[in-house]
Amino acid sequence: MEVKVLRKVLDVNDTIAEQNRHYFEKKGVFVLNVMSAPGAGKTTILEKTLTSLMPKIKCAVIVGDICTTNDADRLSKSGVPVIQINTDQFGGDCHLAAHVIQRAASEIQLDGIDLLIIENIGNLVCPAEFDIGEHKRVVVLSVTEGEDKPVKYPLMFRVCHTALINKIDLLPYLDADIQLLRNNIAQINPEINQIELSAKTGIGFKEWITWIEDQIKLYQKTRNCA
Amino acid sequence: MEVKVLRKVLDVNDTIAEQNRHYFEKKGVFVLNVMSAPGAGKTTILEKTLTSLMPKIKCAVIVGDICTTNDADRLSKSGVPVIQINTDQFGGDCHLAAHVIQRAASEIQLDGIDLLIIENIGNLVCPAEFDIGEHKRVVVLSVTEGEDKPVKYPLMFRVCHTALINKIDLLPYLDADIQLLRNNIAQINPEINQIELSAKTGIGFKEWITWIEDQIKLYQKTRNCA
Repeated sequence: MEVKVLRKVLDVNDTIAEQNRHYFEKKGVFVLNVMSAPGAGKTTILEKTLTSLMPKIKCAVIVGDICTTNDADRLSKSGVPVIQINTDQFGGDCHLAAHVIQRAASEIQLDGIDLLIIENIGNLVCPAEFDIGEHKRVVVLSVTEGEDKPVKYPLMFRVCHTALINKIDLLPYLDADIQLLRNNIAQINPEINQIELSAKTGIGFKEWITWIEDQIKLYQKTRNCA
Repeated sequence: MEVKVLRKVLDVNDTIAEQNRHYFEKKGVFVLNVMSAPGAGKTTILEKTLTSLMPKIKCAVIVGDICTTNDADRLSKSGVPVIQINTDQFGGDCHLAAHVIQRAASEIQLDGIDLLIIENIGNLVCPAEFDIGEHKRVVVLSVTEGEDKPVKYPLMFRVCHTALINKIDLLPYLDADIQLLRNNIAQINPEINQIELSAKTGIGFKEWITWIEDQIKLYQKTRNCA
């Protein structure tokens, strides 16, 4: 019974996600859905990412949290347009759903924007189940979280295109086996692109920024050929 | 519509949670519900906790994960009875619900057990919404997750009785303000008991173990007077 209700909710969500994707295509904007557990470092990564991409690549951000506008305040310092969604108005939802993104996207000026980054709610489970109309999905994982997270939360790693392994500056102080972590990610999803980085020191950002730029180029090329 | 469905699910859950609590009272077992984000250190804390409590206090554990039996394997090394719940059989549920605990509790021998620890799914959102029939709730937060998590995930901190601030051995290597973190927790819940510890070095465990022992004594005393 409960499963049937969830199925229906997801069907409605998928329909609206397709409408979102169509809207983003029309605007020519490439959309990244960035997900992680709470405190893995999404916002700090995005702060540095926006600084690296702008002004060459025009960015906008939609950021989801249950409460507070902390993340939006931090990200808007970069000068890009930022919309904050607080899901406490939606019953404290633990993920961003397509209809919530639809509303937020209508409130943000997307003409001339190349890249829309959606920072999802901090949660390794539910956000992975909800298509919001994005083109690519990124999961951020901190090395402090332990090597077994990919096998314990497999859906998240299965649906993502890139895994950012963050906080590698802390490796000397942890009993973490980075190769085991990488193997666990590859075991769940052999196709996923893995990038080790540190939002604190900036190491690994060149590879991450290149990946984003390549994705945008590829998207724009495919779109022009269509 | 979606909210109405959730309300109904929660009503059914509350009824079964009360049945669970009644069952635990009958068995004379005190029940702790331990929650956190993925990778905050619940299992490492519990490994050390079981070693400290046993054999004086007889323990049993129910551990929830979407996939894998990693945590149960680790915890059963302590010699206590451990039951692993994998929610991928329940649609990949992102929390433990009361009916799931009811089934698991019926499969574990609780006669003579003083303390049942339930290690919930790694998630700072949904587990806070589901009463599973426990007596007290504990949230584990790692200092690597950032000072703002209590204000971003307020419900979790509002419903818990103790907050374990873990991985304090990493403080010298982080830009973390522990006093700000403590203030943020107290702002959300002035009544909550805060304990700083490190599952790696063992610092802070004396206070945590004393808290558990006091809770069990208080529970048994209240029960004998009833």
